[in-house]
Amino acid sequence: MTTPATPLGRSLRVALLGCGTVGSQVARILLADADDLSSRAGARLDLIGVAVRTLDAERDVDLPDGLLTLDAESLVEQADIVIELMGGIEPAKSLILRAINHSAAVVSGNKALLAQDGPELYEQADAAGVQLSYEAAVAGAVPILRPIRDSLSGDRITRVLGIVNGTTNYILDQMDSTGAQFADALTAAQDLGYAEADPTADVEGHDAAAKAAILASLSFHTRFALEDVSCEGITSVTADDIAAAAEDGYVIKLLAIAELLSDASGANGIGVRVHPTLLPRSHPLAAVRGAFNAVFVEAENAGELMFYGQGAGGTPTASAVLGDVVSAARRMVLGGPGRTETTTGHVPALGIDAVRTSYCIALQVVDEPGVLARIAQIFAANRVSIETMRQRIRQGVGDGDPDGSTAAELRIVTHRATEAALAATVRQVAELDVITAVSSVLRVEGI
Amino acid sequence: MTTPATPLGRSLRVALLGCGTVGSQVARILLADADDLSSRAGARLDLIGVAVRTLDAERDVDLPDGLLTLDAESLVEQADIVIELMGGIEPAKSLILRAINHSAAVVSGNKALLAQDGPELYEQADAAGVQLSYEAAVAGAVPILRPIRDSLSGDRITRVLGIVNGTTNYILDQMDSTGAQFADALTAAQDLGYAEADPTADVEGHDAAAKAAILASLSFHTRFALEDVSCEGITSVTADDIAAAAEDGYVIKLLAIAELLSDASGANGIGVRVHPTLLPRSHPLAAVRGAFNAVFVEAENAGELMFYGQGAGGTPTASAVLGDVVSAARRMVLGGPGRTETTTGHVPALGIDAVRTSYCIALQVVDEPGVLARIAQIFAANRVSIETMRQRIRQGVGDGDPDGSTAAELRIVTHRATEAALAATVRQVAELDVITAVSSVLRVEGI
Repeated sequence: MTTPATPLGRSLRVALLGCGTVGSQVARILLADADDLSSRAGARLDLIGVAVRTLDAERDVDLPDGLLTLDAESLVEQADIVIELMGGIEPAKSLILRAINHSAAVVSGNKALLAQDGPELYEQADAAGVQLSYEAAVAGAVPILRPIRDSLSGDRITRVLGIVNGTTNYILDQMDSTGAQFADALTAAQDLGYAEADPTADVEGHDAAAKAAILASLSFHTRFALEDVSCEGITSVTADDIAAAAEDGYVIKLLAIAELLSDASGANGIGVRVHPTLLPRSHPLAAVRGAFNAVFVEAENAGELMFYGQGAGGTPTASAVLGDVVSAARRMVLGGPGRTETTTGHVPALGIDAVRTSYCIALQVVDEPGVLARIAQIFAANRVSIETMRQRIRQGVGDGDPDGSTAAELRIVTHRATEAALAATVRQVAELDVITAVSSVLRVEGI
Repeated sequence: MTTPATPLGRSLRVALLGCGTVGSQVARILLADADDLSSRAGARLDLIGVAVRTLDAERDVDLPDGLLTLDAESLVEQADIVIELMGGIEPAKSLILRAINHSAAVVSGNKALLAQDGPELYEQADAAGVQLSYEAAVAGAVPILRPIRDSLSGDRITRVLGIVNGTTNYILDQMDSTGAQFADALTAAQDLGYAEADPTADVEGHDAAAKAAILASLSFHTRFALEDVSCEGITSVTADDIAAAAEDGYVIKLLAIAELLSDASGANGIGVRVHPTLLPRSHPLAAVRGAFNAVFVEAENAGELMFYGQGAGGTPTASAVLGDVVSAARRMVLGGPGRTETTTGHVPALGIDAVRTSYCIALQVVDEPGVLARIAQIFAANRVSIETMRQRIRQGVGDGDPDGSTAAELRIVTHRATEAALAATVRQVAELDVITAVSSVLRVEGI
């Protein structure tokens, strides 16, 4: 689309820190779409330099001579807007603080840094009256920051469920659609470039946990850090778990969850957690396939909302970065607050013990008279009430054995219960002589 | 959640025009959540009055004595923020213009007015440096305005597909899940309050067309009005159409579509249309059930995005209105631009003739040798290329008749073609002596 030539009196100096997958696309688009971006921003956006670690590395895009520099510090000092896409804690953090001290607006996609030191950075930016935006740090291209911060500013969010890691969603989706085991699906994801050679940060849930902290901070007007997040990855999810879930009408997703809770004394707080979760197939998040991301929000008045899109990739994530850059530039040109929030609440983070959720427990049992009653009694004694109980004949197990008992799998879905009550129930059930194994315990949401 | 008591020096006077389904919920929440809203806005939000047509009508909520007034004009003149939820063109338009002249920020949910006179209102607001926001006018509680205007400001939208009318989505979803005919599904929707006694505006697509004009304006930085939208409703969609679509893996949705096109001379423009559309069941919009709304956006860099939520209802829509109110208040308190856009493009609206889409054509044919070849020849002569052709035995039609020919239904899905080429094709095919009837012609998206 052509854009009318608008006379733009002002120009803003943009510094880019980092030129990897996302950074190189940001640089490319800043140069290629300069006219469009400038007319939207109301000022010319001049890319004055790209700070890199080595000048002679291979890059995804060709940049004009002289744009690359090793001297990030002096680049930052000349800029009106600093885009930080280096990743990691240092030197990213020092450079962002330097930008804030020089009154430059900062756009960052650095989820690790924001999850660890976000509170400190937000405070410094507020104190200096400088904009700090980070749309790209959660769910890539999916607009989350503005919908939650602005569109829902007249509402009260009660719960956020997010599929915020594309690698694990791809793996679980493959397991669901092909019946593959975790290890095979992981290998397939690595072959396609959806998973790193060292997949730990993804499959153990650490990446999702960092995003959960940022999502929780945004949604509940309070600043949460990584240590507030209870985290469990997907490495122990088996093909059998997924097949059994499918039979019952569920799909397994790795969810980042932040929700308003009450602790034992009735005081409010926010629980933030990441774990594999059973979701009914009719839930909007269940339809999020492959490496896509989505954030599902429950608000007091708006009800259920969902935001869906690509969670990673250079070009999609660059779109989110540039949205922040144009918005920051607009505000600089038209005047307006540097600060993005006027108040911050102080709702405490609550541990996983305050969470009440439903569970799906798979037990290998010796099928003889009275077993169900003994199991049900233990659930009742721990005040964990049972929603459904289903017996399933295990593959490869015969119809009977010499002493007349048969082996079977029992799948129990509970009503909402605390972690503590559930843990006690599972421990006591496991001690029964008729239980061969507790083969899985998974949380259930959306029922 | 409790909110820390923030000392708020400033207070803003809020006037509400209209106290129907949405207005009454806005009033209720403004009064009940005053502390929270004020702390987010950075100023007390004082509801100074609610303009209504009669004082003694039954209301959904109890309002304090003295808040209701018949004198909308003087109420507007005392306000810092005016919320217009009266609907219709007049007196809503005059009151909004009056508010703009008094430098009040305006929040409106009036899609009919915005679709008809939006361009004039936006210009007046811009000229006066006054904020005009209208999140509630499209897709109710679903945040669309800020994601498109701000989050995607560094990207280029190429296409928007929206399910923006809950009534028709509910009816089509009922037809799909129960096999009901249109008339029965409409009656069911009316019984549940999802459809009005006079359902014309919904089922003929007029409501969706108004929202399409607003969505197109937002997405393409150009101002479109209702007359730019080509519109077709769902009244002629039959249970048979839906069953046949289901057999082929499609679902039928009423979509509002705005897309970047080229006309015959190669010049760019925007096509805006509303019509029943076949969508593959794997498309994210296909999973939007019941009265929910969703907007699916295709952008050059971000790729595919979707925004989902409740499209109607007093409380959800009130959430969108209050998000606009708090954002407007924040900007008043912290300073900043009244205007929300710095430039507006001038891309022309293109008629339906510029659209190229796929079609699904159902033909009742006499099944005798050579029929397929004659039909295929006509498609080829008009340069409409066929993607799939499927023969389907019609219910209630016997296996043969005395002269040896049988009756069958032929379903043809084409590749993308122009409306003109398709219309010529259908006209010529209909004239063949072996064609009993052209039973439906539906557009297909998402393949």
